[in-house]
Amino acid sequence: MKVGILGGGQLARMLVEAGTPLGLDFTIVDPKADACAAGMGRFIHADYTDPDALDCLAACDRVTCDFENVPADALAVIDDRVAVRPSAAALAAAQDRLSEKDRFTRLGMETPGYAEVNSRTDLQAAVEALGLPAVVKTRRMGYDGKGQMVLRDAEDLELAWRKLGEYPLIVEQWVAFDHECSITAVRSGDGELRCWPVSRTWHRDGILRLAASLSVAESRQRAAERLIRTLAEDLDYVGCLTLELFAVGDRLLANEFAPRVHNSAHWTIEGAVCSQFENHLRAVCGLPLGATEARGASVMVNFIGRMPAPCPWLELPDLHWHDYGKSAREGRKVGHATLCAPDAEALKSMLPRLDGLLDSDLLRELDSALGAT
Amino acid sequence: MKVGILGGGQLARMLVEAGTPLGLDFTIVDPKADACAAGMGRFIHADYTDPDALDCLAACDRVTCDFENVPADALAVIDDRVAVRPSAAALAAAQDRLSEKDRFTRLGMETPGYAEVNSRTDLQAAVEALGLPAVVKTRRMGYDGKGQMVLRDAEDLELAWRKLGEYPLIVEQWVAFDHECSITAVRSGDGELRCWPVSRTWHRDGILRLAASLSVAESRQRAAERLIRTLAEDLDYVGCLTLELFAVGDRLLANEFAPRVHNSAHWTIEGAVCSQFENHLRAVCGLPLGATEARGASVMVNFIGRMPAPCPWLELPDLHWHDYGKSAREGRKVGHATLCAPDAEALKSMLPRLDGLLDSDLLRELDSALGAT
Repeated sequence: MKVGILGGGQLARMLVEAGTPLGLDFTIVDPKADACAAGMGRFIHADYTDPDALDCLAACDRVTCDFENVPADALAVIDDRVAVRPSAAALAAAQDRLSEKDRFTRLGMETPGYAEVNSRTDLQAAVEALGLPAVVKTRRMGYDGKGQMVLRDAEDLELAWRKLGEYPLIVEQWVAFDHECSITAVRSGDGELRCWPVSRTWHRDGILRLAASLSVAESRQRAAERLIRTLAEDLDYVGCLTLELFAVGDRLLANEFAPRVHNSAHWTIEGAVCSQFENHLRAVCGLPLGATEARGASVMVNFIGRMPAPCPWLELPDLHWHDYGKSAREGRKVGHATLCAPDAEALKSMLPRLDGLLDSDLLRELDSALGAT
Repeated sequence: MKVGILGGGQLARMLVEAGTPLGLDFTIVDPKADACAAGMGRFIHADYTDPDALDCLAACDRVTCDFENVPADALAVIDDRVAVRPSAAALAAAQDRLSEKDRFTRLGMETPGYAEVNSRTDLQAAVEALGLPAVVKTRRMGYDGKGQMVLRDAEDLELAWRKLGEYPLIVEQWVAFDHECSITAVRSGDGELRCWPVSRTWHRDGILRLAASLSVAESRQRAAERLIRTLAEDLDYVGCLTLELFAVGDRLLANEFAPRVHNSAHWTIEGAVCSQFENHLRAVCGLPLGATEARGASVMVNFIGRMPAPCPWLELPDLHWHDYGKSAREGRKVGHATLCAPDAEALKSMLPRLDGLLDSDLLRELDSALGAT
């Protein structure tokens, strides 16, 4: 079966790694000649709206995406010629932070307070209604902390308006969360849905740094599963979907969703029976879904900016290395490593050996989270 | 790091699958345009002795092979320009069944009785010395049951001589083994050696059909490890090495060795902490070796001739599919699947669900082997 992928970043790369053993043939389109999936499968170096590239994708059996901000124009051209999964509508639903939050609200999912901002007056009113601190974000095209600013005082408002005022904006209430987490589910074309265990996540400067599969309380897992099922069914979703959440006491607040495989579930490659990448492709291609059970406890460490040398880290048993083959650049996700252990206690006992691979404050927070399980 | 591979079959394909996450770049040379690793990495469609292709390999940081019958000429050209691992000498040692058996004997490893055969008279003498039945094999270029014949009576001798008499031959005593097994080890450039658990193997018509990682007695495991260590050190071996054995009562008879990753250890992809493919590349590239412990019990089923449809087999939890992307052809290895379980008992309980995926006689033998653990 031939699978086309719009976007050739690390998510496409890991989709190809997972899909090659299934016998799938890949065609990848990316406007960057040095896209990190360029060496894998058939690579077409072209803009997403390039007619010839879109013809190649339309000749595949299925098309999927490695990011959500695919131009609607591109998908409109191929939508009636090939099965695009998830659908163009599901991708569009994640492209605008305001309609995303409105959808959560309509579905009865609790979110942080938010307000639409189209003028300096709106911004002032939003902050008065929601209080400070707050976060102002562009409604479109933000990721990894880009296109957003924290507002702490009147001066920040002025600064934010000068920097972002030309875009449609949303202001979100600052949430003093206990922790961040996310849940990833895969849904098949006939509506079967399977969830991986909730991932605990840690961000710095808006970029995911750590994600861990620990044992969470059964009630917490069920609550997260109910939320993502509601969302996936509303979107008539096919493939992998991730819902990012803030945990505040017993409550789970929906922050945002990603209509694709997601960084917070990279640990599923080695830490679950069937990974998010394989299951996304199984769903997209109409194959039976794989088991989403975790194998013990795992933690994934993102490498930002440049890859560390693989030694001595590869000496750690059950540590798995993922170098995306990218050149170094500040703030860029260039790779990750996942450390697996039979259970949270065994994982905790391994943590001192990660000293030097991740910041000591993150290591402390992870240790504390493992202690609490 | 750039790794060149001579040969673009399924072993090269699985090496690339394992090495891409390590950030390795691959260059593959194969004389067949439709080699199943052709779509992976940089593919050079050329004879193994093609000077331009060899120049490309020599420009890599390391060169390895996906089969042992690489022309000595090819390796001689690049041997002083790039690190070839395992060495040309180790590959050559496996190319001649007679010198292979002589090596076992010199190292004090028990083998089935054997005799060199260069004439019709030699053949007669060999059979008189070793008894019937016996197996006559070409000394070179045999694999998967090709270039060999079982001798049961005088008529078979005549037939064998007409068919194979033009080649240098070896006759081997027929061994009434209790079962066949093999052990795979990885050895680093500085002499560290790690072994995976012994694999039980089942052949039909000289082709491997099943390999299983069951729990074997500690004494059996240690005995097999001593044999492969002796061999690997004698060859000053770097990379993965497999030794095929006949188990006869308490004895282990050395049958043959393969200086490469091997079909009997494909289960290590999902059934061990670090697979033979990743560990081969770690050794070849001078990276620390990965852990060779098994994760529970596993069985690998080879698909010969044509791939089965993936449904309903993909519904089995912890079953992992490997389609090599080859066209169908009688006797050809086109893919495999590995079923993993927490232990032998759990694996045994899953066997009825494999009914239809493999021959019922093999299923019975596997069930019986699992019962005996």
